[in-house]
Amino acid sequence: MLSKNKLKQINALQRKKGRSENGLFLVEGEKMVDELLTQYFGEGESVYKITDLYYTLPWKMNHLDELEDADFNCEEVTESELLKISCLSSPNQVLAVVTTPTKMLKPLDEELVLMLDGVRDPGNFGTIIRCADWFGIKYIICSTDCVELYNPKVVQATMGSIFRVNVIYTDLPAAIQKIRRNNPLKPVYGASLVGDNIFNMNLDQNAVLVLGSESHGLREDVKEMLTREVMIPRFGQGESLNVAIAAAILCSEFKRY
Amino acid sequence: MLSKNKLKQINALQRKKGRSENGLFLVEGEKMVDELLTQYFGEGESVYKITDLYYTLPWKMNHLDELEDADFNCEEVTESELLKISCLSSPNQVLAVVTTPTKMLKPLDEELVLMLDGVRDPGNFGTIIRCADWFGIKYIICSTDCVELYNPKVVQATMGSIFRVNVIYTDLPAAIQKIRRNNPLKPVYGASLVGDNIFNMNLDQNAVLVLGSESHGLREDVKEMLTREVMIPRFGQGESLNVAIAAAILCSEFKRY
Repeated sequence: MLSKNKLKQINALQRKKGRSENGLFLVEGEKMVDELLTQYFGEGESVYKITDLYYTLPWKMNHLDELEDADFNCEEVTESELLKISCLSSPNQVLAVVTTPTKMLKPLDEELVLMLDGVRDPGNFGTIIRCADWFGIKYIICSTDCVELYNPKVVQATMGSIFRVNVIYTDLPAAIQKIRRNNPLKPVYGASLVGDNIFNMNLDQNAVLVLGSESHGLREDVKEMLTREVMIPRFGQGESLNVAIAAAILCSEFKRY
Repeated sequence: MLSKNKLKQINALQRKKGRSENGLFLVEGEKMVDELLTQYFGEGESVYKITDLYYTLPWKMNHLDELEDADFNCEEVTESELLKISCLSSPNQVLAVVTTPTKMLKPLDEELVLMLDGVRDPGNFGTIIRCADWFGIKYIICSTDCVELYNPKVVQATMGSIFRVNVIYTDLPAAIQKIRRNNPLKPVYGASLVGDNIFNMNLDQNAVLVLGSESHGLREDVKEMLTREVMIPRFGQGESLNVAIAAAILCSEFKRY
């Protein structure tokens, strides 16, 4: 049975303050935890360490092998106990407490890197991470006012891709400067409503692609550093595209060649 | 002041039963209502008729012209009254009651048509409508178990595109059959994880594109009727794409030529 103290500790992780104070976050649901365990027990060292795993009996019966290899605290709980520690409206069999990595890998010089400027919607951010993972983009550099990576809504929306994509929070103009120092020819494209038509361009795959928030677009200090603004042409009357949708279309354009 | 009766009538529209019984739905927020009014007062007859408009004083002061032309019930309300009739957690100045159209326009033979099979998530559906509007796609044909168009979350996620895209609910195999009868050469593409690589194809713009739900994909009776299954190639390790993301990438591929 879960002690009151344990309950309190886990529930604290539903809030940003609790996560940053403890260096821990929550991963929920069969699909997400399966991805976590694959990463954890897989080749190479995972930056995500599991500290606790809480599961119902049916989940346990399907995961006896993984539980045998576990070097973290494993605890069977009832469905009503799971409900008390879950962020989901309908909790799903299993919940893991995971350490937030202290250090993310840095991108190589020769790969496509995504940058997000002030993206605050957790669902959109999670969807962008999922989409980056599909297209083999391993690095997303975020401005410090983007939504927190370990927000439960972000984590869930990634559908497991959070464990495979490296997300770094930093000052974007400084990050662009640093990339330019190492690789002066690497173009930095910014998505906008007035840039060059992406369908008529030869996009360089070894590039940086910056996307702004839907409401505010790219900030001036970032805009000034761009090689070029690029635009998804509009064929109808919609006024704008959701930022995750724009990210997906642009990633697809970069990768299609 | 809003009467108790009025409150009850409006709140009933937050539920599907209330909407279908009354043939009415709610449109909220400055941006959405601006789009609604543009459509309503614009050229050509709008299929969306406004019956009531509730707004705060600041909104009224910015919309005196539109209110002068109004042939529907207009009522100034306080912020706390607006809160009582709103579906939004932070209500936004204005709410309209609108008739659900009894008849949607039918697509022409020679245009790209989207079909959705069992898409149940309101946010995704709204985003797909917004994306269709961006790419100039005027018709979406939905299976009858797709989420309801007038669900407040769908309406909000369209960001106004709901007023420009025609959505028809019907049996999909029957709809495909009917399209084939009129236009036997029109290809019907279905998005899947095992189809032909869209980056290596010449996609016919005068086509039907069918997307299934993320969890169940396309149903067998729809699959059997496809000309071809098409696939967005995967470059990384993500297991799947969100259905709205897949729709966006595919629409972009169709339109880029």
